[in-house]
Amino acid sequence: MLFFTQCFGAVLDLIHLRFQHYKAKRVFSAAGQLVCVVNPTHSLKYAPTRCAAGQTSAEQGVLPPCLHHEAVHDPQLVPCTCPLFSCPWEGHLEVVVSHLRQTHRINILQGAEIVFLATDMHLPAPTDWIIMHSCLGHQFLLVLRKQEKYEGHPQFFATMMLIGTPTQADNFTYRLELNRNQRRLKWEATPRSVLECVDSVISDGDCLVLNTSLAQLFSDNGSLAIGIAITTSKVHNAEDEM
Amino acid sequence: MLFFTQCFGAVLDLIHLRFQHYKAKRVFSAAGQLVCVVNPTHSLKYAPTRCAAGQTSAEQGVLPPCLHHEAVHDPQLVPCTCPLFSCPWEGHLEVVVSHLRQTHRINILQGAEIVFLATDMHLPAPTDWIIMHSCLGHQFLLVLRKQEKYEGHPQFFATMMLIGTPTQADNFTYRLELNRNQRRLKWEATPRSVLECVDSVISDGDCLVLNTSLAQLFSDNGSLAIGIAITTSKVHNAEDEM
Repeated sequence: MLFFTQCFGAVLDLIHLRFQHYKAKRVFSAAGQLVCVVNPTHSLKYAPTRCAAGQTSAEQGVLPPCLHHEAVHDPQLVPCTCPLFSCPWEGHLEVVVSHLRQTHRINILQGAEIVFLATDMHLPAPTDWIIMHSCLGHQFLLVLRKQEKYEGHPQFFATMMLIGTPTQADNFTYRLELNRNQRRLKWEATPRSVLECVDSVISDGDCLVLNTSLAQLFSDNGSLAIGIAITTSKVHNAEDEM
Repeated sequence: MLFFTQCFGAVLDLIHLRFQHYKAKRVFSAAGQLVCVVNPTHSLKYAPTRCAAGQTSAEQGVLPPCLHHEAVHDPQLVPCTCPLFSCPWEGHLEVVVSHLRQTHRINILQGAEIVFLATDMHLPAPTDWIIMHSCLGHQFLLVLRKQEKYEGHPQFFATMMLIGTPTQADNFTYRLELNRNQRRLKWEATPRSVLECVDSVISDGDCLVLNTSLAQLFSDNGSLAIGIAITTSKVHNAEDEM
């Protein structure tokens, strides 16, 4: 009996997932983009100023001092960049992606343009929606966070980080786009390096910021579809016109 | 002596204005757009839900009930749409523009694409920056408002309203664009009719919303340059792709 109940639950989950996917495809069908359904994760740790972003030290591949990492002894090693957990892991930048995939089960998607479909936007803050994006020979970490910067007023923050050094990050431009009901909101910026820490990017507000009311306007039945595109900075400069 | 002091003050103001204009031209020089310096006005009246936006009544050219307008006796007449003052004026929609220009001294600019340069962004809320924009045979009202929706946390809200009926407004798309330091934020939407009341648009959050930190990121020495473009909806639909 328990077996059948579990089977029925799994089938319902599959139908729900398929429905979300169908909805996103409907919205973004014109572009024929890859749609990825991303479920929320309730953040287990939360420290608003976990890292003091130090450009100089980050530039050298050394992570700035973090509250949960006493010290990085070897400058070649970086701590875990997963914004969800206080993870004691540290390793070389080249193996951060495999650590995030294997230990934190963060999915990775291929393609220059994808659609990130964050489900269950109504969940209380702090909540994160995270995915990795492989594109132009590099890996990027997309983080959507629901957070109460001001008590009782949750906001959504979305940013893209390069799993690489700040110098490498300067070569790219990322675009996040919301498009629904004849409204469109676009954010374009240079990605920050994961060495700079996602918490500091969000606390600086240097990302796409949405009030709850705006997020609701762009949501469809509790899911928010964000179109993501990454280009090299040369393309961005050429397009640099109003 | 007083005369010379006043002259000196006027010259200083002119230099300051010229400097602001030069700065904006530098930012938007590539597009050769018309730059308009807009000074702030401290809002003399402030009622967050001044109007209950009623689409049906607005569609018929009758303004929905406002707190400061007991009743609109003649359905052909609309009250003053200036969001700054509790103005007792009422008249036909066709003469709203001349009332706003003559009584409230709101400037009007011509051109499909202009740059709105709002000065003194640091001033405390509530503050409005307002201009009219004449384009594609119609007049639009651009309102940038600094307001504390949540006490102690001022935000900036920018929207464009058509000085016309909601049916006429549906034929257009407006775009507001911020562009500075390799960051770009774009908002595109159908303008609302002035008959629907700017206060309700802002309280619904159905506009470009900026936190203070984001506004600072896009500001240059206390001034915020917003690129404005208006197109007909057909163009918007054709471009409707991610």
